[in-house]
Amino acid sequence: MDAFDPLRKLKEFISYPSVSADSAFAAGMKDAREFLEKTFAELGLVVETVPTPLHPILLARREGPAEWPHVVIYGHYDVQPPDPLNLWESPAFEPTERDGRLYGRGAADNKGPLMVHLSAVAQLLRDNPDLPLRITFLVEGEEEIGSPSFVPFLETHKDKLDAEFVLLSDTGSPRPDQIVITTGLRGIVCVEAELTGPRTDLHSGVHGGAVENPLRALVRLCASLHDADGRVNIPGFYDAVTEVQPWEREQVSRLGQREEEYAEFLGVDTFGTTPGFTPFEAVRFQPTLEFNGLGGGYQGEGSKTVIPSKAMVKISCRLVAGQDPQDIQEKLLQTLRERCPAGVKLECRTAHCGAPYRVVPPHRPDTPANLNPYLAKAYDEADRAITEAFGNAPLYLREGGSVPIIADLKTLVGLDSLMIGLFLPEDNLHAPNESFHLGVMEKGITVSRRILQHIAEQGAKESMK
Amino acid sequence: MDAFDPLRKLKEFISYPSVSADSAFAAGMKDAREFLEKTFAELGLVVETVPTPLHPILLARREGPAEWPHVVIYGHYDVQPPDPLNLWESPAFEPTERDGRLYGRGAADNKGPLMVHLSAVAQLLRDNPDLPLRITFLVEGEEEIGSPSFVPFLETHKDKLDAEFVLLSDTGSPRPDQIVITTGLRGIVCVEAELTGPRTDLHSGVHGGAVENPLRALVRLCASLHDADGRVNIPGFYDAVTEVQPWEREQVSRLGQREEEYAEFLGVDTFGTTPGFTPFEAVRFQPTLEFNGLGGGYQGEGSKTVIPSKAMVKISCRLVAGQDPQDIQEKLLQTLRERCPAGVKLECRTAHCGAPYRVVPPHRPDTPANLNPYLAKAYDEADRAITEAFGNAPLYLREGGSVPIIADLKTLVGLDSLMIGLFLPEDNLHAPNESFHLGVMEKGITVSRRILQHIAEQGAKESMK
Repeated sequence: MDAFDPLRKLKEFISYPSVSADSAFAAGMKDAREFLEKTFAELGLVVETVPTPLHPILLARREGPAEWPHVVIYGHYDVQPPDPLNLWESPAFEPTERDGRLYGRGAADNKGPLMVHLSAVAQLLRDNPDLPLRITFLVEGEEEIGSPSFVPFLETHKDKLDAEFVLLSDTGSPRPDQIVITTGLRGIVCVEAELTGPRTDLHSGVHGGAVENPLRALVRLCASLHDADGRVNIPGFYDAVTEVQPWEREQVSRLGQREEEYAEFLGVDTFGTTPGFTPFEAVRFQPTLEFNGLGGGYQGEGSKTVIPSKAMVKISCRLVAGQDPQDIQEKLLQTLRERCPAGVKLECRTAHCGAPYRVVPPHRPDTPANLNPYLAKAYDEADRAITEAFGNAPLYLREGGSVPIIADLKTLVGLDSLMIGLFLPEDNLHAPNESFHLGVMEKGITVSRRILQHIAEQGAKESMK
Repeated sequence: MDAFDPLRKLKEFISYPSVSADSAFAAGMKDAREFLEKTFAELGLVVETVPTPLHPILLARREGPAEWPHVVIYGHYDVQPPDPLNLWESPAFEPTERDGRLYGRGAADNKGPLMVHLSAVAQLLRDNPDLPLRITFLVEGEEEIGSPSFVPFLETHKDKLDAEFVLLSDTGSPRPDQIVITTGLRGIVCVEAELTGPRTDLHSGVHGGAVENPLRALVRLCASLHDADGRVNIPGFYDAVTEVQPWEREQVSRLGQREEEYAEFLGVDTFGTTPGFTPFEAVRFQPTLEFNGLGGGYQGEGSKTVIPSKAMVKISCRLVAGQDPQDIQEKLLQTLRERCPAGVKLECRTAHCGAPYRVVPPHRPDTPANLNPYLAKAYDEADRAITEAFGNAPLYLREGGSVPIIADLKTLVGLDSLMIGLFLPEDNLHAPNESFHLGVMEKGITVSRRILQHIAEQGAKESMK
């Protein structure tokens, strides 16, 4: 076996255009998958390719005695579409090094970070072929399209994931010298509501004043969903929210981002936060109800004086720890039904839901007694390794985005996740000129290696007791 | 000169495809105009074709001594586009008789009704070449595109319109045996508002909770524009509204339309009227504020969890007698500015305005002392002639729609209008298979002829005093 060269491997991985959203890239998906199958096999792992209705999920196992600790490493081999192509400085699927970065679609999301852990495992096994650690790589191909096959997969394959915890890097950090360990993700609930008034668009002169305008009903209905402070005005919406801990606020305060800079970045004069939360806290700790799209009537140029027959709104709620997506969805639907004005008919469609996730690291006032002891050890080693490799202790922060599979792994398989943020704001995720910071990559490998090595050692100690 | 055959003439008029909105129909516009010029000349009228930036306005004058009364007859020679063509049972510009109706684009709006008055004049002048009446046909070619040239035309040609009143038929009646004399039209004010929040669409996970969502701001702003009763909630909006007279409500009550039938026609379970008004009253007597179009964010299939950068609404107000469009527009703009939530920027664009119009026929408690005496006589004769020709006395009703040129004629030239409704709900105005009821046409000619004859006689009596 050749020496495992992380950069060479990553370049090859990026060169396969594995766009999951577009069937024109089916060959790229297959090539990326086969690259991983070959690479895992080279490391001596047992590879299982699990078919799904769309893109197969890869399981690559380093097996061993049941007393060895077991770590699941998650990643995804699919990438976002590369459009608009003309804005790329070098071709999206021809990985190119410039100024300490590797450019290419998927470099940061998620091929680079996955390669960090893969390289760490390769080095560990090269140096210690008898490492007493079970490892399962779980690599899906549908992350960029909402992981539709993930829950069914978990339900049928959870016995293979009987592990201590999940290790992954699919979240961000603010600077190359300031790594974040992500301790929470928001959940999501999506509902679309359509109001129908008159059977057809009406002339607003001939009939205006006789009928309820569905747009008027909709703005009234939607305006009722927040109170004057911007809090969500749905009975019971906040009831189950887990209280934010002082240590969490303290970590946010150490982020070092200034509100003025954030406002300038967003292009706003004032923030729209609820009372008691800075914008940096609000996006991490507060649930929201947002109107993602709303429309009805004539939206073209000029005027057309109609009373539209229909109006619709797309609503999504971001949920925080404690909130249950089914419960919130039901409360939202119930509120919409109760407040729907007379004279229009309401029809609701529900779309995808995802649970929020929160994990409390060790040594916090609210660390749960049943935190997996290997995960606790992994946190400790991650903290030490990151501090040494990157020069600063990691921050422990929740993120505002939603990665529902993390909550699914907790709910369905009982696994918490150690999430080490390896991509940076300037990595241009989902945008042209995506890149991965090679310095972060190198240090990330060291950190991952130290964590896995430490877990193996802890397991060995445990079994010698 | 051949005998004037109204039906033959109308068929020729309809055969010229005079669609003002589409430059592809320029030849049709020219043909229809030349047809009128020729027809007016045949009657001995002096024709003046007044150029405008788009479609010329025709003035055709029967001149005479200053002591003869002077009636302006208004009409328009342009028609709506005929699309969708495949829904026409006979070609839109090949006028076809079926079951006592003449089918073709423009048959009812406005070529048929204009031909009614033209035929009345032809018959009158044939029978009495010395009829002591001055007549000016004022026929525009931009009615279907909002009459943009009409006000500038009035301002430069008002000396030619120094008349007693305007006679026209460009409004509707409910049944072929129940004619309406239209006593009012609503005005209109259009405003478009755009709210801008963050400089670009944002990920609702990453940034949700930090910023005001322009759609949230917009629904709050829009919801504030009506109170719980559906009345327009803009300070001073109703201040100048002329009180509805008991005789006006009495006339509406005689319309004989049932609320259940109207609800069924509209396809609604309940009406959206303000307290104190039936739906039939509301559309005639109440001003409105309608959202004609509203939109922002992602409106396609599925979900895209963005916080949009922008959201917009198109608002139109229908105004009733007493309200001033400039005043209402300013109040609306002021209210939008005052209530615009923090965190978003408001930009407003104003579009066309039109004043409301109301005329009080003679013998009403509120008939103005300065009602033109010839117009009073014309009303009386119209009432008698309609009663005899159609079998029922006319109803005197305001209409919900807006025909701003009627108010312009009043404001700029001082002319009130006698509006005799000659098209019916089943005439399919602006829709495929437009037609004109030939029985209504024939009776309409009799009525128009009697009115003009009566005014000429009154003038002669007056000058003999």
